[in-house]
Order: sequence, then structure tokens, then C-alpha cells
Amino acid sequence: MEFFFKPEGIAVVGATASKEKGGNIIVTNLKKGYSGQVYPVNPGYKEIEGLPCYPSVADVPDPVDLAIAFVAAHMVPGVIEDCAKRNISGVMIQSAGFSETGPKGTALQQEIKQIAEKTGIRLWGPNCMGLVDANQRFVFSTVTPAIWDTGLTCGNVSLIAQSGMLAGAFLIDLMSHGTMGISKVCSIGNKMDVDENDLLAYLIDDPKTAAIGLYLESFTDCRRFMALSRRTTKPIVVLNGGKTARGAAAALSHTASLSASGVIVSGAMAQAGIVEANGFYQLTDYCKTLGMYPEIPAKDGNRVAVLTYTGAAGIVSADIMARHNLELSELNTATLDALQTVFPEWMPPANPVDMWPGIILNGSKKTYNKAMEAVCADPGVDAVFVHCFAGGFSLEADLDRMAKTAKKAGKPLVCWISGERDRVYQFQVSAQKTGVPVFREVMRAVECLGMLLNRPLVNETDEQPDPSEQIRRLKNDSRLYVLTSEKGALDEYVSKQVLDVCGIPVVKEEQVTSLVEARQTAAGFGFPLVAKGMVPGVSHKTESNLVHLGITSAQALETAVTSLLQTMEGRGSILIQKQVQGKIELVAGFVRDPRLGPCVMCGLGGVFAEALNDTVFGVAPLTLPDAVQMIDRLKCRNMLEGFRGFDPVDKKALGRILVTLGDVGCAYQGIQEIDINPLIIENGQPIAVDGLVVLGESNR
Amino acid sequence: MEFFFKPEGIAVVGATASKEKGGNIIVTNLKKGYSGQVYPVNPGYKEIEGLPCYPSVADVPDPVDLAIAFVAAHMVPGVIEDCAKRNISGVMIQSAGFSETGPKGTALQQEIKQIAEKTGIRLWGPNCMGLVDANQRFVFSTVTPAIWDTGLTCGNVSLIAQSGMLAGAFLIDLMSHGTMGISKVCSIGNKMDVDENDLLAYLIDDPKTAAIGLYLESFTDCRRFMALSRRTTKPIVVLNGGKTARGAAAALSHTASLSASGVIVSGAMAQAGIVEANGFYQLTDYCKTLGMYPEIPAKDGNRVAVLTYTGAAGIVSADIMARHNLELSELNTATLDALQTVFPEWMPPANPVDMWPGIILNGSKKTYNKAMEAVCADPGVDAVFVHCFAGGFSLEADLDRMAKTAKKAGKPLVCWISGERDRVYQFQVSAQKTGVPVFREVMRAVECLGMLLNRPLVNETDEQPDPSEQIRRLKNDSRLYVLTSEKGALDEYVSKQVLDVCGIPVVKEEQVTSLVEARQTAAGFGFPLVAKGMVPGVSHKTESNLVHLGITSAQALETAVTSLLQTMEGRGSILIQKQVQGKIELVAGFVRDPRLGPCVMCGLGGVFAEALNDTVFGVAPLTLPDAVQMIDRLKCRNMLEGFRGFDPVDKKALGRILVTLGDVGCAYQGIQEIDINPLIIENGQPIAVDGLVVLGESNR
Repeated sequence: MEFFFKPEGIAVVGATASKEKGGNIIVTNLKKGYSGQVYPVNPGYKEIEGLPCYPSVADVPDPVDLAIAFVAAHMVPGVIEDCAKRNISGVMIQSAGFSETGPKGTALQQEIKQIAEKTGIRLWGPNCMGLVDANQRFVFSTVTPAIWDTGLTCGNVSLIAQSGMLAGAFLIDLMSHGTMGISKVCSIGNKMDVDENDLLAYLIDDPKTAAIGLYLESFTDCRRFMALSRRTTKPIVVLNGGKTARGAAAALSHTASLSASGVIVSGAMAQAGIVEANGFYQLTDYCKTLGMYPEIPAKDGNRVAVLTYTGAAGIVSADIMARHNLELSELNTATLDALQTVFPEWMPPANPVDMWPGIILNGSKKTYNKAMEAVCADPGVDAVFVHCFAGGFSLEADLDRMAKTAKKAGKPLVCWISGERDRVYQFQVSAQKTGVPVFREVMRAVECLGMLLNRPLVNETDEQPDPSEQIRRLKNDSRLYVLTSEKGALDEYVSKQVLDVCGIPVVKEEQVTSLVEARQTAAGFGFPLVAKGMVPGVSHKTESNLVHLGITSAQALETAVTSLLQTMEGRGSILIQKQVQGKIELVAGFVRDPRLGPCVMCGLGGVFAEALNDTVFGVAPLTLPDAVQMIDRLKCRNMLEGFRGFDPVDKKALGRILVTLGDVGCAYQGIQEIDINPLIIENGQPIAVDGLVVLGESNR
Repeated sequence: MEFFFKPEGIAVVGATASKEKGGNIIVTNLKKGYSGQVYPVNPGYKEIEGLPCYPSVADVPDPVDLAIAFVAAHMVPGVIEDCAKRNISGVMIQSAGFSETGPKGTALQQEIKQIAEKTGIRLWGPNCMGLVDANQRFVFSTVTPAIWDTGLTCGNVSLIAQSGMLAGAFLIDLMSHGTMGISKVCSIGNKMDVDENDLLAYLIDDPKTAAIGLYLESFTDCRRFMALSRRTTKPIVVLNGGKTARGAAAALSHTASLSASGVIVSGAMAQAGIVEANGFYQLTDYCKTLGMYPEIPAKDGNRVAVLTYTGAAGIVSADIMARHNLELSELNTATLDALQTVFPEWMPPANPVDMWPGIILNGSKKTYNKAMEAVCADPGVDAVFVHCFAGGFSLEADLDRMAKTAKKAGKPLVCWISGERDRVYQFQVSAQKTGVPVFREVMRAVECLGMLLNRPLVNETDEQPDPSEQIRRLKNDSRLYVLTSEKGALDEYVSKQVLDVCGIPVVKEEQVTSLVEARQTAAGFGFPLVAKGMVPGVSHKTESNLVHLGITSAQALETAVTSLLQTMEGRGSILIQKQVQGKIELVAGFVRDPRLGPCVMCGLGGVFAEALNDTVFGVAPLTLPDAVQMIDRLKCRNMLEGFRGFDPVDKKALGRILVTLGDVGCAYQGIQEIDINPLIIENGQPIAVDGLVVLGESNR
């Protein structure tokens, strides 16, 4: 990919002398920053912007390894052929008019893809805004040259955008407002060849990139995306446009991309340690924060000291922190004593530290510095949130010095800045250089700090068990023969036999066909019992009066079995089960997602399951830590941890069930779906009480 | 209050010639904008800022009806005495050093309060930043004169702030960034006399105020606050600092105020039609939106058309809308046809309307205007969200014209603006004048639109039943004698008798003391039954093995009753109840809040009640619409409305229970607490299955 990022010479095919046209803007932008040779290509000109213009790519002299194409769509195939002949390594196709415009454009896109496959030339785009690299001052883009007026602020955050806007209009907004410095911005357009994974792999290895943000409307290969993310410690943030049903409808009409189902994608992102954002500025603000604090925190802490010049902002910060799983640090005596030296006598210091009275007594810089030193020395402080004001009130703070203090203590520092417009802008720009993430709203600052201190951390290590081992074992288990020999839905009894063989704890049960057999089973099991009628083709037993719960006597058993035999009219058989007692009902399952392949689900069950919508997904095969992390993403997590009278759930046992569901799905391609509903927690242990395995209709 | 807002002459007590001191800044700010007489008072000067200075308030000539005091705290009582003698109507005490500094300051505050009560003089503050009135150009404040450089942008939003920062530093931020125009900003400080209710009442009647925002750390009288809000259609937004436990801790250490419990306050706000905000900018952004669209929408719609220059922002807008209860409008054929006239042939228009291809063909203004006209004419569109860009790309839009189109159609229009910094600022300032709320982030724009279209609307009408009628009836009901004669917790049977007399549906039950009586009751009721042991002093029956559920036969009854009689060892009696069957368990209750008085609670019950934390509060007495609105605030609302197999709940029946709980609590001051847990929904009807009435220990 080096020829895209560090080309040794660039041909601009479709260059023009007409100002304000894309083919002119590209040349202008290259001239402003790119130090290598630029070769305008257009048979109609001798010279463009003072550079000699060539009639065709074939005429361009050495060195040249990249072409930027901005010609009418129908001319693109010819251009690619010419470039391949000229031994150019890659083409950025910035022209539009391909798959985003309908069937004709899609056919054209297919045609150039074939040329690329045949010749080995790499294609970036089409329908894209190319690349901006602020450090190298490369603007390989039709973006308005006004972008140079923003200062093209350098930073260590790189972006990959499936949207031209983010690599053009929004980039100008970002940089002109002093919001964030930029390393590289890659606009991938229709990502026909070079896709987010190619660029992600490049940026993971790029020393000028500390954090990577992506706006994606579709994943070319989400599993590869996950694997790349899991293999690096470099923070990655994704804004997945079209996650909701409505958003997805919009995505379909906008680009040639399909959106993966939102909740499954969220599970996949969390599993890979990727941070999710919901808006453009949230994406870049998360990236800014992570770019400044890219290391995985050494210690797992969420206790924050708040330094403020106004009590109200301290209080509101604390309120918002509570919603983002951040705690107010309890400052220790040494810290409080140190703070008291800059506080008036009548005011005992506390956290949030309201420094205003101290500022009146001692001036702002002394008070800010002293407070910062005090809280940074406190072992009960994991991070510091400081409020600054720019413009009057004698509130100047020495952010550089505060940043040094915090850095020395190894504690992340974030800052809320407000004040007079120009002073705020200067403060933001200077904070960029100092390396402190600065925000215009308390809410966003707390949101970013919450993300930083609570983000899911996943890192592949060699110590993890080989997930294929259990898959191999399941594949070779002859007792699971049914999974290759049958098709369609297996009945409850067979389904649970399968789960049992896999190692999932299932309720004690036996299949009977007469009252005599039922009595024998009951004698062995003891009461209370459940009797269920299994009738081929009937999947909703409760609605069909085929379930009798709470059988506590021989008489009740007789009543139940007799009634079932009548209802069933000679079809099917009866399941006699031990009744499982438990307050918590969960559901667990396996699905084969069209995009992500085998996936595992876990959620709150019972009557509230769907109404309260508490479900999480993971991508199989899972490791046990993956599975436990999945469980920890449930909203009802506190119930599972022994909240108010609930027995704490054995999370490892529950996690092993999820791992196994994924593994059996991976071992047997015929499995379309597995449902365990309910999965009841009895004395802290999960037990599958009902189960359903669905095999594909084309399963052998 | 007129003398505070339109004084005929102002004495500045504690004026000084020393620049940058508060006593000088006040005079400087007055001179810049106030057109009446300004009288500096200080025995040490003959002249301050070119104005004659008076040795004492007594020496100030007419006309004068307001004093601004900025002297050391201990001098304030004398100043108030002097002002009262001089017949000055009100004093704004901007000095600090009162209750916020501890017991000594609290005593001083008490002293000046007594002077005010004795003399009738009104006091604003102390420890406050006074008043800014942008329309009149009044700055009665120690705020830095740099505030004049912001342009002091006029608007129709007024703020009341229990924080000097919001009336000083943040105000400068707000106005210098072109975020919002301002009518009046009142900083109430320790609000010893003039409080948020006095100012709210004034601003409700102020023709220059269209929307009112408040930052409050405490409510002086929350019920009066609610009553004022309910009586006006003027939108009110509250940011209640210290709502969370942690926030409240911060509030206690910051000011002399106590914070009411957050969840009860939220209920009270919703009941009074007040919008709640969580951050400073969110507060002002909500106010800006409501100030521009203050009318209660004629029609209850949440369908939004999105006009964008970039597909990605359309998709992300749709995603965020889904989280804020906003729908994407389904555009009708006429609208789509009209849009097609500015779209290229290959692109069928849809909502979000991605105008970029149209802009390339027809230019931005034509495309924006045409699209705006089309969606405004569509009856399926309730509001429009437009994305604009300032600075390059030929994306200029005619916001004035679009605003006119939307206004004519009676549809709210909100706008996301991004782009080059100075151009964005100009756009924001000009949108202020045009009357379109403009936001820098898609997320905030959608949040404000969601608030606008979904906000709780409450309006007192004469048609509502007199809430005191049922209260009177309950008060006079001799069957409720127990509520005045007993004290402490009533037993389950008596508690439910009370509920029954009040008109709350309770489970069919009888109190028995022997197996014989139990059999007689069972014969009358029929199975299934529940038997519960009531032992004086034992409140947790289940944990004490005093509950037998699911009794379906005479034999089981005998077993249960015999077991209970044994466990109870001759104490208490047995309740025989019809067993109530229902999927949904709720809880309902009554509490007497130290701040808000009698309050009613409703929530999700059963095992998930506390773990999932789905509880809402209302302030009694409730009207039936209040109670139904309360129910609609439950997270489990969809379950109650018949989601996926649940019976829809009779909300009016449930609402009447809540109304009655509040009314009986209002009728009997001795009631401390009522708990109905569970309140089971059987065939859509709520039935109290267990009940507990707790009377005060000092109840007669």
C-alpha cells in the first residue's frame, strides 16, 4: 500500500485548467504540499497550473507509481488499462457514477474490478475523496483548497471514511475549529478493491497513527476487521451508519452497501475491543481522547477528581459521571491538607474541588497547579477532569504545567473549556500541542472519560486455549450424528440430548409414551415434575395446552398425563422433567448471521425477555473471557451478580454454555439455529429447561 | 418586582474607582447600557467613573428605587437598613460571605432576612451575579465588561441561575459563540428572599421572554414551582444540579442547599410539563429551540423529513432519531415527484433526502429551496431537519427562505451547521435573527427535535375534576377511622380493607383462625387459593415460611393451614385469598417526601423490580391524566400496551389506583407510606394482592 501513502510520482488523469473543477483542484492541492513529481494528464492541454501536461498516461515520465483519476465514469476502464500498462501500482478513482448510481454503474464497476484482478493494479475508490495526510501535507483530493486555510493541523488520529463528507466538508469543520489534529484521512468510497481492512492493517502499522476512527456503512469482511482489531493495542473507534432499521433503509438507498444487523455488529465490536460511537463529533472526540491516551491503562480504575472554578459545573459533572460509570474520588487526608493550603479557612476542600475561593485568594495559576499536584499524588485518583475558562475573570490556567503533572503521575487529564470565542479557539489549538483532550461541553468530556476508563479491552495472547480443540472434539463425536443425518427442527428431547452431549447442563428428563412409564420415571425422579407433550410439528407447547407445570403428587401426574394423552390423540410422546426452581430465567442461543456467520446470543428470558429487550451477541468461536465479557454487557448484569437477594450466577458456567453453543455451530454447518429458552438459574447454576436445534432443510 | 427589572435609579453601594474590582465593574457596566441615574456610594470618593459619588445611601437624590450592594459581608446589614430608610424598594446583594461560608455567614444572612421582613424591602441574592437584560442592555453585575464585546445578542430566552458561572462566564461563552440570543439572565445566589418562584412568575408574564431555562441546586418550594409551570403554556426547562446521590453530595458541600431526591423531582417536572436537561449547553439548546417554537404543537406528530447534502449524515441522523422517538417521514408521491424535478434521473429520491446529486445538477439554493417546499407540503411531515455547510463546496443555502417556507407550513425546522469557523459563526448569528435553531452536532439537533416533538404537555384546564372532592370524601368516610386511631404498620388484612374502602380493587380474601373456618372460606371462594400467616411484627412472610401459594385441593388446603398453625404457634391469624393469575406484576405506593410532600409511586414489580429499576413518581394529588402520563413514563410501557402476548392493561383503572393512593395520603396526614406489592394485572385489570399501610408513630 506504500504507493498510495508515499507515491514517488503522481499522474492526475482528467486534470484541467478550468478553475474550481475537480481535475484542477487535485493538481492545485498536490502542488501545495506534495514534494514529488505531479503529471497532469489531458490531451487538451500543454500545461496546467504551470506543470507540463501529458496527452496520455503512457507519455508520463518516471518516476510515477500512483494515478489519481477524475474522468467521466465510462472512461475509467480505459484509464485503468493505460495505468496498468505504464506499470503504475495503484489508482485512486475519484470519479463518481458507479455502483451508487444503479445497475449500469454497477456493471462498469465490475468491469474495472476485472481489469484490476487481471493486471494486479490496486484500485482505491471509486466515488471517493482520496487521501489527506496532514503530517506529510499530502492532499490527494478534490476537497476545496480552502482546506489549507484551516492550518491542516497535524495530529496522531487517522480516519477511514465510507463518506466523502467526512473526508472533505467535515474535515474542514474539524480542523478550522481547532477540534482535533489529523494524521491521515482515507475516503474509501465504493471500496471496490482497497477496503477498510486493507487500510486498517496499514494504519495499525503506521507510526504516525496512534488511534484510528472509522465511519462505515458496511463491513467488507467483519471477521477480518475483528481479527485485525484484536491483534493490536492501537485504539479503534467505529461509527456504523445504518445500524437501526431506519438507518439501514437510508443506507440502502444511499450506497451500494448492505448494513449488518446493528445489535450483532455491536456485539462483534465489543468482542474485538472496538469502541462504538454514535455521531460524527463523538467519533472524532473519542479518537482525540484515545490518540492522547492510547495505552491500555495499567490499572482498572474509574475514580475521577474534578477541578473546577465553579461549584455548579462540579455538581453537574458529578451527575453526568454517575451515568457514565465514573466515581468521584474520595480524596485522602494528605490531599485535602494540601488543598487546604490554597483554600480559605472557612471552606473545607472536597471533590469536586471548587477552586474559586482559592483562586480569589491565591490567583488562578497557583491554585490550579497546587490542586493538580495534590490530586495527582492521591492514589485514590485514577483520572482528572479540569474545567478552564478563557477570557476574563482572571481565570487563566497553565495547562502545559498541569498536563506535565498529570503525565508524570500517569493519570489521564481531560479538560472542559468555555469562554470568549477567539480565546477558546487558541486554547483548543494549544491543547492539541500539549496533548490534552479539550471539549466544549461537560457532557462530552465526561462521555470521553467514561469511554476511556471503561472501554472493553481485548488483546490476543498466546495463553488462550485453541478454540478449535472443542470444535474438533464435537465434530468427531459420533453421538452427534443426528446433526448431519437430520434436517429441519429437532424435537425438544433430541435437541436437549444434543446439548447434553455437547456438555451443556440440561434438565433431568425422560421420554415416555404411557402412564405406566410416566409413573416409573416419576418414581426415579421424585416430585415436583413437569409433563410436556411433544407432538411432531407443534412448536408452541404452552399455547397448545401441552405443558403441565408443578406436578407434586402421583394423582396430579395421572391427571396431567391422561390429559396430555387425550390432547395428543396418539401422536408424539411425553417428556417427564424434574421441575427446575429459579428466580432468573435467561435465554441463550446460536444463529448464523448472513454477514458475521456463526453467532451466539444471551439475554434476559421469561415474560420480560422481549419487552425489555436485553440481549447481547458474540461472534463464534468464543473464548471463555469473550463469553464472560458478553454476559457483563447485559443490562441485567447486576441481577446476575447477586443484586438484592438474587443468587450470584456462576458466570464461568454460563460462559461455557455460550462457548459451546458457538463451537457446536462452528463444528456443524448444518445447524441454522439453537434456542435454549428458558435457561434457568438454579442455585447459581444455569440449566437448559427447553431446547430447540434447527438444522438446514438442505442438511444431509 | 418591576424595580429590579426596570429601576428608575440605581445606587451602587461599595462602588470604587479601583479598576477591575467588582465595585468599579458594576458602575462601568451600568454606564454602558443603563439609561437611568447611577449613584455610586462610597465615603472615600467624590467621583467614580465620571459620576458624582455619595458618602451614604441617605445622600442619594431621587429618583432611586434599586440598590446594588457590593461591600464586605459584615457591612451588608447596615446597608440594607440605610436602603430601607431611603425608601429604596429592593437591593441586589452581590457580596459573598453568607450561608455558603458556614455558620457565621448563615447567622449574618438570617440577620439581613429579618431586616427585610421588618422593613418590607426585597432582597436579591446574596452571593450572586445580579441581572443581565440584553434587550434593555442592562448589566447589573460584576461580570467582566468583556461581555459587551460579545455583542450582547438579544433573544427571547430568559435564564434563572443558582450559579454565578452561568450568569457570567458561561454567558460570555454562549453569546460570543453565537449560540443563543438572550432576554434576561437572573443569578439568584443564596436566594434568601427573591427566589426562583418569584422570578419565574415575573418571567412568565414578561412579553420579552418566550422560553425560560433554570439551573437549580434546590427548590425553595417545588409545589409552587410546579403550579406556576402548569398554569402557563410558556416552555420551561430545568437543569437540576445534584440529582444523583453523588451530585447531591457535591451540592451540599457547595452551597447551603439541599437537593431533593432526583427521581421524585424528575416525576414532579414531567407532571408539570417541564423539560429536564442534563448539561449546561443542553439546557440552553433546549431553551433556544423552545424559544423559537414556543407554541404547543397543534398536532401530535413525530415524523421528520431530513434534507442533507451528504448521505452519511442522513443515515446517522436516522440512527440517532430512532433513539429519540422520531420517525422518518414516508414521503408521498407528490413530494417524491417534486423532488425528482431537481434530482438526476438515476437517483430516486427518498427520506433522508440526499440532495448532493441535485446540488451538482441545479446548484445548492435551488435544490435546497425546492426540497424544502416539497417536504413542507407533505402532510406526512411534522418537522424538517436540514443540514447546511458554510464555507466552500458551493453549498450555500438560503436559510431565510427555507425558514419562511417551513413557517408558512407550520412545521418546526432545525438545522445542523458545519464548516469553516468564521462562516459557521456568521451562519449561527444570522440564524438567530431568522429564528431557526441551529446546532453544531447532529446528535444535539436530533435531541432538541426529539424534545420538542415528544415533550410532556400539561395545561391546567377548568374541565379537570376538582381533586379535593375525593380527598374530602375519603376524609369523611367513617370506615377509615383506623387511619386516625392506629399508629405504625397496619397488618396485611387491615391494610387491604383500607385500600378496598378507598376504592382500590383488592384480592378476594378472608381472615380465619382455624382449619374449619379456612374450609368454609375455601368453599365460598373455590380453588386455587393462597394461605398466608399474619403474625404481629413479622413483615417478611415469604422468608418466614408464612406463604403457601397454589392451593388447588382440599387436601392441599389442610396441609397448608396445618403447617401455618404450627409455624405461628398460636399467634396471629391466617389469610385465605383467591390466587390471582397474571404475567405482569407491578408495585404502587405512596410516600411522604421531605421536600415534595405526598407523592405516588408506580413501578415494575416481581423479581425484576429493583434490579431493573423501573419506577416513576408523581406529586399528589394527581389528576387522572397526570396518573396516566406517569404510567406512560415507565420503561415497561410497551408491556402494558400489549407488547408480544401481554394483555393490554386498563391504564385508566391503573391510573385511578394511583390517584386514590395520593388522595388518601392527602386526606390522612398520619399516613407515612403505602405499599401495594404486588399489584398483579389479571385480564388487564390491576388487583392489589399484598398491601401495607404505615402510619406515623405519633399518629393519634
